[in-house]
Amino acid sequence: MSGPAVEPATPYLRVDVSRLRANIERTARWAATAGVSLRPHAKTHKSPEIARLQLAAGALGLTVATIGEAEVFVEAGAEDVFVAYPLWLTEAGARRVRDLADRADLAIGVDSAEAAQQAARLLEGSGVAALVEVDSGQHRSGVAPAGAGAVAAAAVEAGLPVRGVFTFPGHSYSPDALRTAAADEARALQAATASLRAIGLEPDVVSGGSTPSLAHTHTDELTELRPGVYVFGDAQQWELGTAAPGDLALTCRATVVSHAGGRLVLDAGSKALGADRAAYATGWGRLPAYPDARVVQLSEHHAVVDLAGAPLPRLGAHVDVVPNHVCAAVNLADTLWADTGSDTGGGLEAWPVAARGRNG
Amino acid sequence: MSGPAVEPATPYLRVDVSRLRANIERTARWAATAGVSLRPHAKTHKSPEIARLQLAAGALGLTVATIGEAEVFVEAGAEDVFVAYPLWLTEAGARRVRDLADRADLAIGVDSAEAAQQAARLLEGSGVAALVEVDSGQHRSGVAPAGAGAVAAAAVEAGLPVRGVFTFPGHSYSPDALRTAAADEARALQAATASLRAIGLEPDVVSGGSTPSLAHTHTDELTELRPGVYVFGDAQQWELGTAAPGDLALTCRATVVSHAGGRLVLDAGSKALGADRAAYATGWGRLPAYPDARVVQLSEHHAVVDLAGAPLPRLGAHVDVVPNHVCAAVNLADTLWADTGSDTGGGLEAWPVAARGRNG
Repeated sequence: MSGPAVEPATPYLRVDVSRLRANIERTARWAATAGVSLRPHAKTHKSPEIARLQLAAGALGLTVATIGEAEVFVEAGAEDVFVAYPLWLTEAGARRVRDLADRADLAIGVDSAEAAQQAARLLEGSGVAALVEVDSGQHRSGVAPAGAGAVAAAAVEAGLPVRGVFTFPGHSYSPDALRTAAADEARALQAATASLRAIGLEPDVVSGGSTPSLAHTHTDELTELRPGVYVFGDAQQWELGTAAPGDLALTCRATVVSHAGGRLVLDAGSKALGADRAAYATGWGRLPAYPDARVVQLSEHHAVVDLAGAPLPRLGAHVDVVPNHVCAAVNLADTLWADTGSDTGGGLEAWPVAARGRNG
Repeated sequence: MSGPAVEPATPYLRVDVSRLRANIERTARWAATAGVSLRPHAKTHKSPEIARLQLAAGALGLTVATIGEAEVFVEAGAEDVFVAYPLWLTEAGARRVRDLADRADLAIGVDSAEAAQQAARLLEGSGVAALVEVDSGQHRSGVAPAGAGAVAAAAVEAGLPVRGVFTFPGHSYSPDALRTAAADEARALQAATASLRAIGLEPDVVSGGSTPSLAHTHTDELTELRPGVYVFGDAQQWELGTAAPGDLALTCRATVVSHAGGRLVLDAGSKALGADRAAYATGWGRLPAYPDARVVQLSEHHAVVDLAGAPLPRLGAHVDVVPNHVCAAVNLADTLWADTGSDTGGGLEAWPVAARGRNG
């Protein structure tokens, strides 16, 4: 799709396509060398264009968080989609999943015998398979690893095929936990695998992965990884040390609208950047052109920046901000503006955020 | 517009229309009694349906934050719109503002002589007026009150009519600051008014207002108030004591998807509720049915709730969550599902969030 002749109004999200491609290819090569499959989480980009780049680079399939996201990517041609979420299926939800399973290989997450039995009843004969979610230390959803076998047994007995186990080591989002979360992940998946074998089930898929812990993955314990953020990086990854500033592929282009009180005020607020701020974050986003600067105040349409002594850019100047959490920023935008550089003479292409807001 | 026969998939935003109407009418009566005009901020609801209710209850016009929001509401029939933001106009932005001014009374904010001069040049002959933004203590945008006259003088000299002054006392968002922020607002607007009079300009509009400080407004110093959140309330207002639980008009309906580790896990995450968490907030949202419960962990598609000892609702049960910051939650949704109660036999009507994502 061709972009417009004029630049979009700020604030808008820009994708540096050469960095994006480099991130996708680097991780694909790493996974291939390590002998694990990649099933990238598409919730980060919500974009069929980017999913196609991932699949072209060798990804086995896609991960999504919701049935609505699965619908967007299957519609766009994805043939193998895993809803990595402990779905509680309603009859309406099950009809949607069955429709998807007519067009693609579809798997869903379960983390209780009841949810597995409900899915088995509503998805009978659909060919949909389940993976049992285990908690590897984030303490969000997922059964204790040793309990995976019981959930799997309930699923199989009710008629829902079980393909394996999965976890999300989300506690890796902390500067001191990258390596330990990866170790927790390996231990949990090993225990879950043992728990399945104890009921006579050999898992085909042992799935984990998060962008911060990726480089520390015990790849001998896993068959598949589902990172999402690695395609773009963001200020969280920058501050965790898991993305170099030169690899960050998505920024929010903002305009300097005010110098009130000697402050730098940009028109990119929480409605463009997202309001995520982890405990370890040093602000509400980072500015690549001003590595020492911090976004010290964020409201819906204003970012107030402490420039750490750098001279104020003039009113009307453009300043790029890297959002703290790129998944949240993308989910606020209808379009990613892809800077394809020399490929198309420097124009911006509009890439629809096709799965934006597909929460259910 | 009629709603569907079946309930939408969770998570989705529900509006209790009788509470919404009561909130709109109560504030309209209060303003009328106090002798100030209401120009509600439409960034909260982004919904033409709700704007119409506000205008029918006597609102003078609408406030918006961006040109894109103004376009949506003028298209929906609004005749008087104020962009309460220190716009830096580009040529493209100015063309859009001129188009709007052909169809509605349009005013914009400025907080510097340079921005006023730029607007004067680009909007010449359009009939667009400016209000000078002053900082009343939030320290975001806005000139110091005594500097309002200099900005106004620059605007008038460049040919941009100045209608008055405005401020947003956003530092009211703190449990101890409701009353003091209202006092700061009055003092700042009084000083700004004096500063305009000193250059021979009598302001027609002296505009302020925030939902937390509203009841404490020094109405003798203002002609106009621009609250937004009052239409719905949210968990922030509940925790600030500025909305009663029984007045909260917007909730996110969620499904219990997991009991992992004995926890309540809902399918409403930050992509439905928003990630806002003010320093005074006790969690990432509140549950009206469980006033003692707290959302203790929030990720994109999961809310983990500490029920404070209450029994876990069953898997698949519906639980309503009040978002911390309703403006952020609405901006994530394409549709508000309006529960009109007995008006239409209990069905849900789909109200489009028509200005969602119109950040520029």
